[in-house]
Amino acid sequence: MAEQKKMVEAITSMDVDFAKWYTDVVRKADLADYSSVKGCTIIRPYGCAIWENIRDILDGMFKETGHENVMMPLLIPESLLQKEKDHVEGFAPEVAWVTQGGQEKLTERLCVRPTSEVLFCEHYSHIINSYRDLPMLYNQWCSVVRWEKTTRPFLRTTEFWWQEGHTMHETAEEAMAETERMLNIYARMCEEYLAIPVLKGRKTEKEQFAGAQATYTIEAMMHDGKALQSGTSHYFGDGFARAFDITFQGRDNKPAYPHQTSWGMSTRIIGAIIMTHGDDNGLALPPAVAPIQVVIVPIAQHKEGVLDKAEELRKRLSAICRVKCDASDNSPGWKFAQYEMKGVPLRLEIGPKDIENNQCVLVRRDNREKTIVPLDQLEEKIPELLKAVHDGLYQRALENRENRTYTATSMEEMIQLANEKSGFIKAMWCGDLECEMKLKEQAGVTSRCMPFEQEHLSDVCVCCGKPAKSMVVWGKAY
Amino acid sequence: MAEQKKMVEAITSMDVDFAKWYTDVVRKADLADYSSVKGCTIIRPYGCAIWENIRDILDGMFKETGHENVMMPLLIPESLLQKEKDHVEGFAPEVAWVTQGGQEKLTERLCVRPTSEVLFCEHYSHIINSYRDLPMLYNQWCSVVRWEKTTRPFLRTTEFWWQEGHTMHETAEEAMAETERMLNIYARMCEEYLAIPVLKGRKTEKEQFAGAQATYTIEAMMHDGKALQSGTSHYFGDGFARAFDITFQGRDNKPAYPHQTSWGMSTRIIGAIIMTHGDDNGLALPPAVAPIQVVIVPIAQHKEGVLDKAEELRKRLSAICRVKCDASDNSPGWKFAQYEMKGVPLRLEIGPKDIENNQCVLVRRDNREKTIVPLDQLEEKIPELLKAVHDGLYQRALENRENRTYTATSMEEMIQLANEKSGFIKAMWCGDLECEMKLKEQAGVTSRCMPFEQEHLSDVCVCCGKPAKSMVVWGKAY
Repeated sequence: MAEQKKMVEAITSMDVDFAKWYTDVVRKADLADYSSVKGCTIIRPYGCAIWENIRDILDGMFKETGHENVMMPLLIPESLLQKEKDHVEGFAPEVAWVTQGGQEKLTERLCVRPTSEVLFCEHYSHIINSYRDLPMLYNQWCSVVRWEKTTRPFLRTTEFWWQEGHTMHETAEEAMAETERMLNIYARMCEEYLAIPVLKGRKTEKEQFAGAQATYTIEAMMHDGKALQSGTSHYFGDGFARAFDITFQGRDNKPAYPHQTSWGMSTRIIGAIIMTHGDDNGLALPPAVAPIQVVIVPIAQHKEGVLDKAEELRKRLSAICRVKCDASDNSPGWKFAQYEMKGVPLRLEIGPKDIENNQCVLVRRDNREKTIVPLDQLEEKIPELLKAVHDGLYQRALENRENRTYTATSMEEMIQLANEKSGFIKAMWCGDLECEMKLKEQAGVTSRCMPFEQEHLSDVCVCCGKPAKSMVVWGKAY
Repeated sequence: MAEQKKMVEAITSMDVDFAKWYTDVVRKADLADYSSVKGCTIIRPYGCAIWENIRDILDGMFKETGHENVMMPLLIPESLLQKEKDHVEGFAPEVAWVTQGGQEKLTERLCVRPTSEVLFCEHYSHIINSYRDLPMLYNQWCSVVRWEKTTRPFLRTTEFWWQEGHTMHETAEEAMAETERMLNIYARMCEEYLAIPVLKGRKTEKEQFAGAQATYTIEAMMHDGKALQSGTSHYFGDGFARAFDITFQGRDNKPAYPHQTSWGMSTRIIGAIIMTHGDDNGLALPPAVAPIQVVIVPIAQHKEGVLDKAEELRKRLSAICRVKCDASDNSPGWKFAQYEMKGVPLRLEIGPKDIENNQCVLVRRDNREKTIVPLDQLEEKIPELLKAVHDGLYQRALENRENRTYTATSMEEMIQLANEKSGFIKAMWCGDLECEMKLKEQAGVTSRCMPFEQEHLSDVCVCCGKPAKSMVVWGKAY
C-alpha cells in the first residue's frame, strides 16, 4: 500500500491544479510525450491504441452510411489554397510552408495541409460530371499541421491526427441533411462509446469554420467546467464549388453546382476523455475504447497455482474482452495503482482463497465497487460490469454538466457567474457580433453554440436588451 | 458484348506497351489519380480499400509478434537528421524543407520525414533506461515524402504511404533475429495473402539502406520480367544508438548501447499486385485483399424475381465474403468487363433459368473458368473457389518467374541475356563494388539480392573471374 500511495501522490490533485493534473496524467499513463519538434507530440502506444479503437468505431459508422476512404496529398500549392477567399484568410496565417524540394528551390510554395477542402475540391472538379456521380461521400484519416504557439498534448499541438469527411451533393437539402447526419454520428460516438454527454448546436457566425455557411458542433463539458469542442460538421453551400468551377449535368440536362459539407473529429477527443472521466487516481477509460478492458492481478502469486489460474482466465476471457494479466513481480498494490492510473475499467483480483472458493473479485474503475463473482459466471458478469462502468462514467459527467450549468438574464449576472463559477452559462442573444464581442471582453466567455434544444429564458438579449433571437450557451473553452 | 469489347479495347495491351498498360489499369480500375501537387497522387477509394486490407493483415501480424503502434511527428529538425552521417547523406538530397511556420521564418529548417529513424532514436533516448525496457518494438503507419523527378502511381511518387517498424534490442543477436523475423512476415504477406512469390535475400553494400549495417529484401518479379523490391528489413547494429547516445543499464549493471532494426512495406506493393497479376482485361486481385471478393451480376434482371434473388444472395453471402450486387441498368456484358477490370476474384451470375434450377454460375477472374453451383452449396464453394483463384494467381506468377530466370557464367552471356531477355539473371560475384558497377554499365542490370538459398553456379565472378563469394540475382528493377 505504501507503493500505491507513492504513485497516487505523484499526480497533482485535480482540485489543486487542473492543468498540471492533466499533463501529469498524460505522462504517467504513457499517452503522449513531447518531441524535439516545436509544438509536435509523440502519441505513445497506449494513446495510439485508444485512437485506433476510436478510429475503428467511427470508420465503421462512416462506412455503414456509405462513405469511402481516400488518401490525399499532404502538400497544397499556395495558389490552390488561395482559391476560396474566406478559407485562405482563415488558414494561411497558421500553415507551415515548404519552399525547397530536394535540390530545387520551389517556384511555388507548398503548405503542409491544415485541412483539405481545396484538395478535395480540385479532385471533385475532375471526377464529378453528372448527377449520377452524386452524392460523393469521401473521408480520409491523416494528420494536419497548424502552427501553434503553445503546446498541450491532444488539446493544442502543431500537428494533430483526425479524420476529415468531404462530401458533394446534388441539392442544398441533401447537403444539409448530411451535415446533420454526421453531427449525429459524432454525438453517438461521444455518448454511446466514450460516455461523454454532448450539447448539439450551431456555431455563431464568428465561430464558424473559414469558408463555411454554417458550422454545427458538439460541445462537451470537462470536469473543471470548461468546454471542449468535440466534433464539427460544416455546410458550405456551393461556395467552394463556384470557386473551383465544379459543375455537374443535372437531371434537367443543365449544368449545376453541387452542395458541399465537411466534418472532422480529431485526437483532441482523447483530451476530452481524460478531462471528462479522470480523477486523482489518473485516467478512467470508457470500456468501448480502452486498450485493456480487464486487467487480471494475481494475489499472492508466489503460491502454487495462482499464476496458472490467472493465465487460464486470461486466455478464457480474451474471447469476450481485451484482457491483460500482469504477472510481473511488482506488488499487487503497485499494480492496482498502475492500472487505475491507466484507466483500465475493470480489475480482476484472484488469489489462493478465491481459487479455493472458485471465485474472483472484480473492481470497477469508476467507483471502486467490488463484486465477488463465481468463476463460471464471468462471461455474463464482465459485459454487465463493463456496461455499468460506461453508465457510471456517463452519469458522473452528466451530473457534473448539470451542476455546472447556469442561467444569466442580465449582464451583471453573466459577469458574476463567469467570475465565480466555471461551467456553461445559458443566456439569450440578439444575434449581433457586437454583443458577442462584449461578452468576451467583459465576462471572458465565448459562445459555445446555439443548442438545437432551445429554451426561452427571456425576451431580450442578455447584453444589449434588444429582442433575443436565440439562446446561446456561453463558457470558457479549451 | 459490343460494350464489353469496347471497354477491353480501351486498355493498351500489356505486350504492346507494358508501361502504358500499367497506367491504363491504374486509371480505369479507379485506383489512383494525379493531383495538382507535383509528384503526389491521390489514392482513390478502391485503391485505398486495398491498402486498408493490406494494413489490417500486416498490422495483425505485427501485433501478434508483440509490436505496438505509435504516431511520430511529421517534421524533423535539420540538426536531428544530421546526427547519423550515412543516414543524412542518403536522405538529405531528396527531402522537402519547411522554412516558414505561420508568420515566422524558422531559425532551423524542418524536413518532412523521408523515414523516421532519427525521430524514433531521439524518443528512445528518453524512454530506454534498463535492459528491462528492451526489446522496444514500435511501428507506425504514415506517409513519407522523398522528392522525385518522375511520377508513376504507387511505384514512384513524392509522397507514399507505408509502415515503418523501429525496434531496439539488448543484443546484436536479438536484433538480427528481429530483422529476419520481419522479413519473413513480409514474405508471408506476399505469398500467403497477395499471391506474389518472392526471393528472400540480402542486399549488396551498394544497395543498402543509408546508415544500415545490413539490408534484407524480398524481391518479386513483375509480369514483364522486371524486379520490384517489395519490403525491406534493416539491421543497424548500434550505430544510431551511439550517434544518439542511447544507452541502457545492462544485466551486469553497466551501461550498454542497444541494437536496432527498422523495416518497411509501402503502397508500392499495390504496384506489385497490379504488375504481377494483371492482364489485358485489367486488374486481378488476390482474394485476401480484394475490396469486393464476389460480385453478383443479375442476368435478365428485368424479369420478375431476379433482382430479389440477387439481393437475397448478397445478404446471405455477406456473412462469408465481401460481396457486392450490381443492380444498375448497365448491361451484363458491361458489368462483366467492368468487374474484370477491377480484378474482382469471383463473378456470380444469376438469371431466371438459374433460379428455376436453384443454381448459379461462378466465374473465376484468373482463368475465366465457370462452375455451376447449386445455391445451397455456395457457403462451401465460394471459399474453395477464392482459394483456387489465389492459388491460380500464385502459380501463374511463379511460372512466369521460373520461365524468366536465367543463368550467366560469363560476361558475354550476361550482356546477351540482359539485352535479349527480361528477367532475373543468376550469376556468381566476387563481392567487389567495381564488378557491380561494371555489370550496371555494360549489361544495365543491378544486383537485386544475394538470395538466402544460394546455388553454386561456378567458382568465379561472372565479371572479373576472381573467386566468387556468392550468387547474386541481377535484373532491371522498378
